[in-house]
Amino acid sequence: MKLTWLYRSFKTDLDLIEQELERAVSSNSELVNNASHQLLKAGGKRIRPVFVLLSAKFGEYRIDRIKNIALALELIHTASLVHDDVIDEADMRRGLPTINYLWDDRVAMYTGDYILARSLEYMTNITDPLAHKVLSRAIVELVTGEIDQIKDKYRFDQTLRDYLRRIKRKTALLIAVSCELGAIAGQTPPDIYKRLYKFGYFIGMSYQITDDILDFVSTEEELGKPAGDDLRQGNITLPALYAMRYPLVKAEIEKVNRDTGKDVMSKIIQQIIETGAIEQSHQLSRRYLDKALAVLEELPDSRAKKPLKEIANYIGKRKY
Amino acid sequence: MKLTWLYRSFKTDLDLIEQELERAVSSNSELVNNASHQLLKAGGKRIRPVFVLLSAKFGEYRIDRIKNIALALELIHTASLVHDDVIDEADMRRGLPTINYLWDDRVAMYTGDYILARSLEYMTNITDPLAHKVLSRAIVELVTGEIDQIKDKYRFDQTLRDYLRRIKRKTALLIAVSCELGAIAGQTPPDIYKRLYKFGYFIGMSYQITDDILDFVSTEEELGKPAGDDLRQGNITLPALYAMRYPLVKAEIEKVNRDTGKDVMSKIIQQIIETGAIEQSHQLSRRYLDKALAVLEELPDSRAKKPLKEIANYIGKRKY
Repeated sequence: MKLTWLYRSFKTDLDLIEQELERAVSSNSELVNNASHQLLKAGGKRIRPVFVLLSAKFGEYRIDRIKNIALALELIHTASLVHDDVIDEADMRRGLPTINYLWDDRVAMYTGDYILARSLEYMTNITDPLAHKVLSRAIVELVTGEIDQIKDKYRFDQTLRDYLRRIKRKTALLIAVSCELGAIAGQTPPDIYKRLYKFGYFIGMSYQITDDILDFVSTEEELGKPAGDDLRQGNITLPALYAMRYPLVKAEIEKVNRDTGKDVMSKIIQQIIETGAIEQSHQLSRRYLDKALAVLEELPDSRAKKPLKEIANYIGKRKY
Repeated sequence: MKLTWLYRSFKTDLDLIEQELERAVSSNSELVNNASHQLLKAGGKRIRPVFVLLSAKFGEYRIDRIKNIALALELIHTASLVHDDVIDEADMRRGLPTINYLWDDRVAMYTGDYILARSLEYMTNITDPLAHKVLSRAIVELVTGEIDQIKDKYRFDQTLRDYLRRIKRKTALLIAVSCELGAIAGQTPPDIYKRLYKFGYFIGMSYQITDDILDFVSTEEELGKPAGDDLRQGNITLPALYAMRYPLVKAEIEKVNRDTGKDVMSKIIQQIIETGAIEQSHQLSRRYLDKALAVLEELPDSRAKKPLKEIANYIGKRKY
């Protein structure tokens, strides 16, 4: 589902960004063109552009300046998704078949490369050197996060800290940077954009933890892929980490591999739920959300505060 | 072989760049670290940094400013090689096993992503917005060239124009941009850096055609992979295009696929040679080289002219 109901007042600007995204991923290679548009469709809620626009409202809102940052960020995110799906050997994303499934890993690799390259083109339209530094650093962290994810696959002895650092790099940082750069594009003073960075970071952490919970507790229909798929792919997320504090449950979880069937998986999910790990994960997600809301309170009054709060609360409550 | 004998006076600066490259590709992931260093070793002659340094000599040579451009370009090139090898299912590069062969396609994809991300970090140190535009555009073209290469694989009815556009994007443009950006970093006036762009473009075209010839006429020992490998992978290069003007040879070439054995391939290579296609290809390479040398003549006097001419002549004569 899209978050458009939250920000009617941004409809024109979000539509503009959507059209520009379509144009950005177009290619004279039919293959890449089809793959990119497929990917854009599956790309989801456009929360990064939304955060850019809302954060810019704390300063001087000029869509021509903000647009390039929103586009660059959404394209970076989209490029990372397609490479992610290769790493995870994912067949489905949000109910749609992945590029690597519809074509193959190599097409997915090159489609991702192409979209990343297009995002760099939008970056060149950004004149602020600070914005460049922030964006490049975010790309390095994003890729490092992916590499960590590969390293940590099926590594059942990882710590909570490993997990948190991974989701920071994988998700929270790009959302933090969306908020920060929106504010920078709006030419707010440093104390504003630094706070918005923090807000985005906390929201991003909460968001990813919720995502990781939903992978266990949603239905296949809601997820567009089987429940427990993260664990099957070797991605050890928060509910599994909490549940593994119980040696018997840990022993079961450690047996999981790519060939684990649905019946076995639903038994393991049941065991995880019974440890209270889902509830504990919700609590940590909620703690990050409360921190985000606290940071938001400290920010000066702006028309953007209410929708940001609504998004935060939506993230806390979303079911899929 | 490295070109170091050509430019003793640059030894200190080239050593500096080499060390910085080593540092740039280092990663706390042992896997990525090993893969990146393996790749750097196989990366070749560092001709892009050499062109950056030499071109900067036409203006104000300041290594601190030039360095970032040389590093960004060499890292972009290195990242493109590893993704190339995935596309081509290449086992060997310059006598060393490829990342996709030593590990797998996914490790190669992520190692390439990581190296590209690091190159973006060096780009952020570049303050000139023109340099950013040129670099980003070059990355888009490079990726587009790769996509063209996938599209054109085993497409035996392609034209000379298809081939030339492909090698422009794949090779010539990055060398052209190395020369252009070196000059821009040296703060030369536009007529100088535009000429150096042209010089690099012509050199790059000549260089790639020579490369494509060598793939047919060098020995396996010299190439570090079997002769005729480009054609086996479906990459239709200039000698094959020329030879296909003869219908009987064309019929033989069209039968080539990934499973074509060495004996059949060496018969086909012999047929290609007999059409005069190698000689014709040498002529076109030579024409580009002459154009490069003519552009060089028009450039103002500089200590860099002689080594640039030597490199041009080396490229015209190189045997592997």
